[in-house]
Amino acid sequence: MDNLKFNHITPIQLRFNDFDALGHVNNSVYFSFYDLGKTAYFNQVMPDVSVSKEVGVVIGHIEVSFLLSVYPGENVAVETAVVEIGNKSFKLLQHLIDLDTKQVKCICQTVMVCFDAITKTTRPISEAWRKAMADFEQNPELLKVHTNH
Amino acid sequence: MDNLKFNHITPIQLRFNDFDALGHVNNSVYFSFYDLGKTAYFNQVMPDVSVSKEVGVVIGHIEVSFLLSVYPGENVAVETAVVEIGNKSFKLLQHLIDLDTKQVKCICQTVMVCFDAITKTTRPISEAWRKAMADFEQNPELLKVHTNH
Amino acid sequence: MDNLKFNHITPIQLRFNDFDALGHVNNSVYFSFYDLGKTAYFNQVMPDVSVSKEVGVVIGHIEVSFLLSVYPGENVAVETAVVEIGNKSFKLLQHLIDLDTKQVKCICQTVMVCFDAITKTTRPISEAWRKAMADFEQNPELLKVHTNH
Amino acid sequence: MDNLKFNHITPIQLRFNDFDALGHVNNSVYFSFYDLGKTAYFNQVMPDVSVSKEVGVVIGHIEVSFLLSVYPGENVAVETAVVEIGNKSFKLLQHLIDLDTKQVKCICQTVMVCFDAITKTTRPISEAWRKAMADFEQNPELLKVHTNH
Repeated sequence: MDNLKFNHITPIQLRFNDFDALGHVNNSVYFSFYDLGKTAYFNQVMPDVSVSKEVGVVIGHIEVSFLLSVYPGENVAVETAVVEIGNKSFKLLQHLIDLDTKQVKCICQTVMVCFDAITKTTRPISEAWRKAMADFEQNPELLKVHTNH
Repeated sequence: MDNLKFNHITPIQLRFNDFDALGHVNNSVYFSFYDLGKTAYFNQVMPDVSVSKEVGVVIGHIEVSFLLSVYPGENVAVETAVVEIGNKSFKLLQHLIDLDTKQVKCICQTVMVCFDAITKTTRPISEAWRKAMADFEQNPELLKVHTNH
Repeated sequence: MDNLKFNHITPIQLRFNDFDALGHVNNSVYFSFYDLGKTAYFNQVMPDVSVSKEVGVVIGHIEVSFLLSVYPGENVAVETAVVEIGNKSFKLLQHLIDLDTKQVKCICQTVMVCFDAITKTTRPISEAWRKAMADFEQNPELLKVHTNH
Repeated sequence: MDNLKFNHITPIQLRFNDFDALGHVNNSVYFSFYDLGKTAYFNQVMPDVSVSKEVGVVIGHIEVSFLLSVYPGENVAVETAVVEIGNKSFKLLQHLIDLDTKQVKCICQTVMVCFDAITKTTRPISEAWRKAMADFEQNPELLKVHTNH
């Protein structure tokens, strides 16, 4: 995954109260940034995720490595890619980067689980979503069901 | 209002990310504290506000005076009182206080508007709510309709 | 003030967790938006506010009228203007607007107090700041000391 | 770790704006809860972490499993334990639990890295901290350096 090319990027507007008493962006705020990236990705690639009242995705698992702090005045953005698709879940890789220095500040891997809002149970990922993600990522490997999920 | 006796108090659990880069509680966070006070007040005095899907209250106007900063380790609480009741709205007075020093750190006045969630319009305050607030505040003046609202 | 022309505007990037259980932007989040507007204004008009360790401005008083809710997908921005300058404080007027409909969603008036970070006391507004604000607003009235502050 | 006994618990005061448009606590807010647990743990077990300007701990890595949503009115708390101590870092295990049902809502594992604020570099964990954590956890295994860190 190290030489992955991201096809999706969301610039982040930093807010004054993103910064904590240590003068850098508070750890808990990063998740709002990754949310912004995810939402923009879904809006672009599978726009029915956001509007559907019946089928949704929920976060199952998050893993975050904090590499470098974010300071006031820095220009940061979230890069988002789908890197694995299983039967009922898929994995997002996101990098929080400094747009000026190109440094990766923070890495996030998220397992999103496909969810039926009516029956309140998990459900298989539709072929339409699988194809939309594989096409967007230009990665035909994603069309196969990844067995870890 | 200066010698008002508050009958309702909500201690606040401060969070690390309530504090901004200046080392004190960020101005925008105070409104979460006043929300905690309001919610606890309504739960106690008019519990049907919180559960009703049909009738609610929305914030129309807020006025806040910041007197003293809040620093880590301080024990703060929100005192809440209803001080005026009009036809369709009522006014809350809230003090953010230091429980140890008794200092008033911040004063908030909020006009809450009674709202019909189905018709999406304002509506008169019910006599039951008016009586509940007047009783709780031990203030029979509140039973009269205050004409500014 | 009703026909004031704003010379400063800051588009707001809405975040998923700006929206509360009622489906609209939570009241407490508006203050983060006004902060974004203020910070951008100061960075442009009086850039030494942000960098100076010695002289700062703190919020003394806020007054907010909530007119219309903000919903997901709306394009909102904060317009900011200085409308009064006193001896030690000045008043900001800010409108949260919908960029598509031009509706004013929320109005905020903030009294900012000039502050000496070393002596921890209020201090007069410098002539340089007064001139910078009056020039930016193209409002020579601001050069006179407003006696309410 | 499944039958770990926690010796530290922090009840959480939920705020209205912790809940997002889906009606449950927003994923990004959980990290504020875990922060509350961590801060209380350090204040009790190694109080010099919080006050020291010279030696601190920073978050290196977080891994979170979201099992059950948190809804309004629920009584939740964060349980915190140190489960591994390496040379320059240690691992916290935290459970967000429902105090009424005893259900585990969310599990968080955090690697905290010991940091010298003056040289801006990582540094070994002091013997005093290692002993304080091992004593508090009543776990003599923690006195040995865990080689994964």
